[in-house]
This record gives sequence, structure tokens and C-alpha cells, in this order.
Amino acid sequence: MSNYSHVLVVSGGMNSATLAHMCVKDGGSPYLITFDYGQKHRKEIEYARLLGENLGVPHQVVNISNIQKLLGGSALTDDGMEVPEGHYEVSNMSITVVPNRNAIFLTIAYAAVVSFESEYGGAAMHTGDHTIYPDCRPEFVNILGNMQKIATEGTGNPNLSIWTPFIDKSKAEFAPIGLAMGLDYGETWSCYKGDRLHCGRCGTCVEQKEVFELIGTLDPTQYQ
Amino acid sequence: MSNYSHVLVVSGGMNSATLAHMCVKDGGSPYLITFDYGQKHRKEIEYARLLGENLGVPHQVVNISNIQKLLGGSALTDDGMEVPEGHYEVSNMSITVVPNRNAIFLTIAYAAVVSFESEYGGAAMHTGDHTIYPDCRPEFVNILGNMQKIATEGTGNPNLSIWTPFIDKSKAEFAPIGLAMGLDYGETWSCYKGDRLHCGRCGTCVEQKEVFELIGTLDPTQYQ
Repeated sequence: MSNYSHVLVVSGGMNSATLAHMCVKDGGSPYLITFDYGQKHRKEIEYARLLGENLGVPHQVVNISNIQKLLGGSALTDDGMEVPEGHYEVSNMSITVVPNRNAIFLTIAYAAVVSFESEYGGAAMHTGDHTIYPDCRPEFVNILGNMQKIATEGTGNPNLSIWTPFIDKSKAEFAPIGLAMGLDYGETWSCYKGDRLHCGRCGTCVEQKEVFELIGTLDPTQYQ
Repeated sequence: MSNYSHVLVVSGGMNSATLAHMCVKDGGSPYLITFDYGQKHRKEIEYARLLGENLGVPHQVVNISNIQKLLGGSALTDDGMEVPEGHYEVSNMSITVVPNRNAIFLTIAYAAVVSFESEYGGAAMHTGDHTIYPDCRPEFVNILGNMQKIATEGTGNPNLSIWTPFIDKSKAEFAPIGLAMGLDYGETWSCYKGDRLHCGRCGTCVEQKEVFELIGTLDPTQYQ
């Protein structure tokens, strides 16, 4: 039997913190992976480490920043491009797309799923991501899960599956789940800019502020 | 329009050399990628570079060796494990499986396909790989191609597709294609051991010898 039921791809943000806490609360024993893909907001990696520490579960940073050689500009990785400000909308946010990011993250996570004979690979995509990130949509998650069963047939856990419990939920729907579990969202990092404090103006900051307003809870995030 | 029609995952071996030459002969303009994933037979990387030079097309080595942190032992990467000798058969060759390798390689290649607005991602899986490598089978290639269409929808070339022309061919079927194009298989590297000369005893060496015998052509490989 495996030591780890789930291999979860986590950033240091609200979504993946909620995912990992939920996994543990439901009796899972997750192994957490965070990718260093050359993102400017490297600060999220420290918060992902803190997430593992707080939960008492293993956490590994995997450096694949060399893939930058193959990528055109994304505002999240390219020093010559400004992270856009404002609401998440296709018009200004499309330059934050890192092509194929979740497919790459999840296929690497599934290599660990096979090695550990775990049952689940997982990540925290949610409905707010669907518009601009094609690899956050339910149709992507479904086919990725099926692809992984075929790609690893006979080599790992035969019941291998995908776990993305927020795929049909909005952030305002799952944030209360985290709060109810006592998760301190002040110990997470979402801002794409990665300065000392959250900028409060990029797409992910704007989204986060709205969520706390919507659910009527004080946002523990310190903004600039 | 893209500068590169194809992004091809190549090792320095016979299969990928034939693939890349065929692509160029058919009028394609490939961009070649080789992965450093911590393989012991690192020598293949030099031969992959030579392949790009001989064809006059760009070649990039992408270092993802950090993923080793997540993998259990494979004889291809683990210093504590011997590369098995003999014929490719499940019984002794299964320890050469690197879990999910082609899924990882291809998803990273497709990030480049999107960036370059190329039409094809491709690799040189063939029928000889099917028995022990689940991610070399036609059902894998089909679903991977479909997954990539969904994962990248709206971000790259809308006609994006997968190119694996050897998926239903044996090495003995496509090697003559390479020979007819004037490809010098003496400038390729297949051996899993990666010493000065091909060992002549590991699965891939045994397979290569058999192929040249089968097609009645002198094997240009220098064996120990």
C-alpha cells in the first residue's frame, strides 16, 4: 500500500491550500508538489512550503524552469512584460496564460502517482479559471484523467484517478469550506506580482478581495 | 505563420533520427527537443545535437532532471540499478520504465507547439515499444493528441495535432525509409548504458542488431 493517497499540485494560494486541507480532513495522506517554472511571483513557493509544514505532510519543489526556453512571453514569467491589473477578463488577462501549464504539472505529478502507487493526482482548478485558461476546464480534467489511466496502465495503482473537487465550484463556494476547517488564508499567497505585500490590483488579488466581500468575511490578506 | 511546422521530441537514437529526417524530407521545418531527465545514457544528448546540426534545424536540450526527486527507481536513471541485458521482454525490461515519460515529454513539447503556433507535436514511438511502455501505444497517442487540443484551445494553432508516423510500424519497417533517405545510422546513439561504444547487450542494442539482420543491411553501429 502507498504511503500517499494523493499527489497534489499546489501553489501557495487559497485554492490549493483549501484543497490540501480538505484532503487531510477527509482522511487522505497527500504528497504536495510545487513547480518552479520561472514564475516572477516566486514568493508563492515559500507559502506552499508553509502549507506542507502546517499540515505536517511532505512537500517537494520541482524545478522545471528550463522549459522557459520553449515558451513565448507570458506576463507571469517574462521580465519584459508587466503583470496586468484589473478584473479577470479575457481582454487583459490572456497574457497571463502559460501554455499547457496544468497538463505539464499534472503529467509530472502522475509520474509520482505511479512511483508512490498513489490513487489520485489532483489540483485546485475552479470555475473562475475557466474563461481564460483552457487547461482548467472540466473537459480538460476529464480527458487528462483518462489519458493518465492509459499512459500508466500496468505500472502503478490500477485504480488511479484524478481529484479536482473544485472544478465545478467558485472560489466563493469553497472558501467557506476552508474557513470552516479553520484554515488561515492569511498564510497563503496569490498575488501574481510577488512583492512584499499583495498588490491588490492584479487579477488574482481583485478576485480574492471580491470573494471575501461576497462571503461576508474579513479578508485576512495584507494588501499594499 | 509559424517558423516551425513540428515540435519533435527526439533522443539521439535511430527512431527519432528517422522521424526528424522524414519530417524535413516531407517539407516540414521541425524544432527538435531533447530532455535531460537524469538518464545515465547522457551520451544520447550529444547525438541528438548532432541530428539537429546534420539537418540544419534548431535543437534545444531541456533539463527537467529535477523530476527525479519524484520517481522511484528506473534502471535508466538510478545509479543503484543495473541496466538489464537481453531481449526486450516484460520480465526483464520493466525496470527500464520511467513512469509517464512520454506524457511529460509531449506536454512540454506542446507548450512549444503553442508558443511557436506550430501544427504538430511528435515523437517516434513504434510497435516494438508497445509491450512494456504503456505510453508508447496507439491508444495513448490518440488520447494525448485529443487532450492537447482541449488543453490549448484558443491559445495556439487551431489545427494543432499529433504526428507519430511510426506508431503502427516496426523498426524493421521504418529503418529502410531512413536508409533510402541516406541517413547514416552510425551517427545515432541507442544504447541504454551510454559507455564509449554501444554495449551490444541491453534491450535497445539487441533490438537494433536484430533489425539490421532482418533488413539485410550492414549495421553501422560500433559495438564493444
